[in-house]
Amino acid sequence: MSKEITSREQDYSQWYNDLVIKGNLADYSAVRGCMVIKPYGFALWENMRDVLDKKFKETGHQNAYFPLFVPKSLFEAEEKNAEGFAKECAVVTHYRLKSDPSAPGKLMVDPDAKLEEELVVRPTSEAIIWNTYKGWIQSYRDLPILVNQWANVVRWEMRTRLFLRTAEFLWQEGHTAHATKEEAIIETTKMLDVYADFVENWMALPVIKGVKTPNERFAGAEDTYCIEALMQDGKALQAGTSHFLGQNFAKAFDVKFSDRDNKLEYVWATSWGVSTRLIGALVMAHSDDEGLVMPPRIAPIQVVIVPIFKGPEQKAQLDEAIHPIIQLLQALNISVKYDDTDYARPGWKFAEYELKGVPVRLAIGARDLENNVVEVARRDTREKATVPLAGIAEHIQQLLADIQQNLYNRALQYRTEHTTHANTWDEFMQLLDNKGGFVLAHWDGSSETEDKIKELSKATIRCIPLNNPQEAGTCILSGNPSVQRVMFARAY
Amino acid sequence: MSKEITSREQDYSQWYNDLVIKGNLADYSAVRGCMVIKPYGFALWENMRDVLDKKFKETGHQNAYFPLFVPKSLFEAEEKNAEGFAKECAVVTHYRLKSDPSAPGKLMVDPDAKLEEELVVRPTSEAIIWNTYKGWIQSYRDLPILVNQWANVVRWEMRTRLFLRTAEFLWQEGHTAHATKEEAIIETTKMLDVYADFVENWMALPVIKGVKTPNERFAGAEDTYCIEALMQDGKALQAGTSHFLGQNFAKAFDVKFSDRDNKLEYVWATSWGVSTRLIGALVMAHSDDEGLVMPPRIAPIQVVIVPIFKGPEQKAQLDEAIHPIIQLLQALNISVKYDDTDYARPGWKFAEYELKGVPVRLAIGARDLENNVVEVARRDTREKATVPLAGIAEHIQQLLADIQQNLYNRALQYRTEHTTHANTWDEFMQLLDNKGGFVLAHWDGSSETEDKIKELSKATIRCIPLNNPQEAGTCILSGNPSVQRVMFARAY
Repeated sequence: MSKEITSREQDYSQWYNDLVIKGNLADYSAVRGCMVIKPYGFALWENMRDVLDKKFKETGHQNAYFPLFVPKSLFEAEEKNAEGFAKECAVVTHYRLKSDPSAPGKLMVDPDAKLEEELVVRPTSEAIIWNTYKGWIQSYRDLPILVNQWANVVRWEMRTRLFLRTAEFLWQEGHTAHATKEEAIIETTKMLDVYADFVENWMALPVIKGVKTPNERFAGAEDTYCIEALMQDGKALQAGTSHFLGQNFAKAFDVKFSDRDNKLEYVWATSWGVSTRLIGALVMAHSDDEGLVMPPRIAPIQVVIVPIFKGPEQKAQLDEAIHPIIQLLQALNISVKYDDTDYARPGWKFAEYELKGVPVRLAIGARDLENNVVEVARRDTREKATVPLAGIAEHIQQLLADIQQNLYNRALQYRTEHTTHANTWDEFMQLLDNKGGFVLAHWDGSSETEDKIKELSKATIRCIPLNNPQEAGTCILSGNPSVQRVMFARAY
Repeated sequence: MSKEITSREQDYSQWYNDLVIKGNLADYSAVRGCMVIKPYGFALWENMRDVLDKKFKETGHQNAYFPLFVPKSLFEAEEKNAEGFAKECAVVTHYRLKSDPSAPGKLMVDPDAKLEEELVVRPTSEAIIWNTYKGWIQSYRDLPILVNQWANVVRWEMRTRLFLRTAEFLWQEGHTAHATKEEAIIETTKMLDVYADFVENWMALPVIKGVKTPNERFAGAEDTYCIEALMQDGKALQAGTSHFLGQNFAKAFDVKFSDRDNKLEYVWATSWGVSTRLIGALVMAHSDDEGLVMPPRIAPIQVVIVPIFKGPEQKAQLDEAIHPIIQLLQALNISVKYDDTDYARPGWKFAEYELKGVPVRLAIGARDLENNVVEVARRDTREKATVPLAGIAEHIQQLLADIQQNLYNRALQYRTEHTTHANTWDEFMQLLDNKGGFVLAHWDGSSETEDKIKELSKATIRCIPLNNPQEAGTCILSGNPSVQRVMFARAY
């Protein structure tokens, strides 16, 4: 094997990078903090996007597209939002290059082509969208607006990690406008449910639904709902957020509508998004020391078939047997790759598709053909079995469903084992340092205490879970009274 | 009707803008030269994208994603390409905003956050992609690379038009790498054929396939192939281009591979793209003074059903009759909108869907129900017919095919009538001024003459059609000998 993967135990962070790079999901680029999403990684993103897009449309949303650039004067209109993102903004200041007189063949920014007003490359699109909605909304009949956008955004992060935190990333951002507060809140939680359904049932990753503390809210939101997942190193990862924006953006951009009684009211807003970060979550949640492990429902390739042959005659016999299998699998909507290249040996191919996390591998040689069997290997447990060719497609269909369920169960079990209660500060620190995972603990509800806990422990309140049981207690740090436990973790 | 459309005769340019804005395809934005693509316009783009994406995948391509930003030093590496785009580049120079001390609540660009190297917002991605391919290609086994990207690009155009020429636009850009020149040329023309097939058979718009003169080539290409369409005002529109890039980018980025004989060779390249400009072409090619006319195969809504009723009882009866029709249509993969809103009158709805160009409209009232008929209106000819409910779905399926064919025929007839030969300069100018369209005329083959013709007539050589008949003649301007006619037009 030329593609060595660092083991998780050895260096979890390097293990993750190895999987992303050697598994052909992404590549570093020449631009600081930006990555190239390679075809295999992009196929995964396309699968995610297609499932989500269908869910958005089924819940009444339409796609649209808004400008990449936000004029500075619009960007700063909603002050909290602007303040929250100002430190991470890539800014366009000029619109032309010219030949550099001092360096033949080189270009320089043309000082005569300075923009009158600087343009911010969108870190998020509330400002440009609410400025647009102003022109679309007059009456209650224009509401609700249920719009989503698939786009690239830029946040100039100082420390970047492939997929998890990159200067440019791909995402979708839903931006809805409503006549009432109630309707906007229902929308916010509905989209949180869509995200949870997707991450749990397609990505095989259990999540906790909750609401952020004021400290951790999206800049400009009244409430931020989130789904939180647990990675194999015991760190949490925020997998999606849905924001109830109140009337903040309507007020900042003066967006009013006349209601049924002809009274002018400010419009209520939500926004919600998930990004290519989900790919990072997928990698870290399921993979092992041999490589990626793709949940079947989202895998770019669900089944790979490797023929084992010597010479063109055997190859032809295998082709004849395998092509009908491919057709049967495709008829069941199972994606298949038949790797019959002759320049790599079967053992190399086995390792390669294990690295890429293909859920099921079939291997067939001449003797298998004689016996009417095929070797079936499942990626999640790495078990192999010899299976009769008769009924093979249905067998694989069931196996894919089993793998999907097994990955979910495994992740759920890990999370269950790594969700603990701490009643004292020492307990809290010990759990974080030695076990990791979600720690449920009492907190006095103040931002100051939350900041202090973060500073001392590097753990943040991931969320207050929805339908959180109320329970009297005392704050692990301040000792002040508390009405409920909240969910802490160190996080990505 | 509140939504007045300027007629083509009155002001063609205003007619176009009216259709785009009032037809709900797009909106102006707060950013100079950038537009908002509204849900109806974006649904059209999604349909286009989905058809093209399927064709790209069927021809062996995979999607990937490369950074939005190109460091200036990479951008300038291929000199002709850089020179061609330098004047239109939006440039990011800073990565942070901060509070403006002189204006409370306002932000300013933080002078301490100046980038060491400026970043160009991609006007096209050859530079960043070939810099990446360098790391992906060592041997002939790594070739071909057949990659496509769906992305936004920015070209700082001085005069912009909705869809036709905007500072930011959406497009796809294919970037392929090959071991031989022959293979790259085959790829270039194959993708030109894919574009022509799409524009003719989905957009119902006949195109001329040809090759550009050196003057009109893509900056950095050895040859630019194009498809050229004719709009209703007699102006041409370039609907797609496919470039044979030779080894120019491989040389600029030092991308070599070892061939089967272990010899190091530079890689051969192509790139090809179509953009949201196609929406502009669609609008201008088929629409009329009543509004948009959508070709059925690409229409966001293929059939609209308008019930005509008084009171909830009639409405309920109509619903009962119409729901099965909707199901029958959907079973034939026909997209249907049932507009049963009660706050707009049928006449208003008729006008609205005519404006939006929905190919087929059904209207049903209580008396129609009694007679087991429905009124069917086709958008292209605006003919109405009373049709029996029995077999209505198959009738509509056939009608949609007829409309698709009729739109193509109409556009082809227009083009045929507006494709003429000019043998003298006077004839040439008279045809351009009075008739418009494609004018086939002799040209001496020199760039100087081409420039002069453009300066005097505002017409450009759209292309030298593929398989162009060879015919001796004399150049309409210089009188020098010529071996073939080339295709001139004034163009968008």
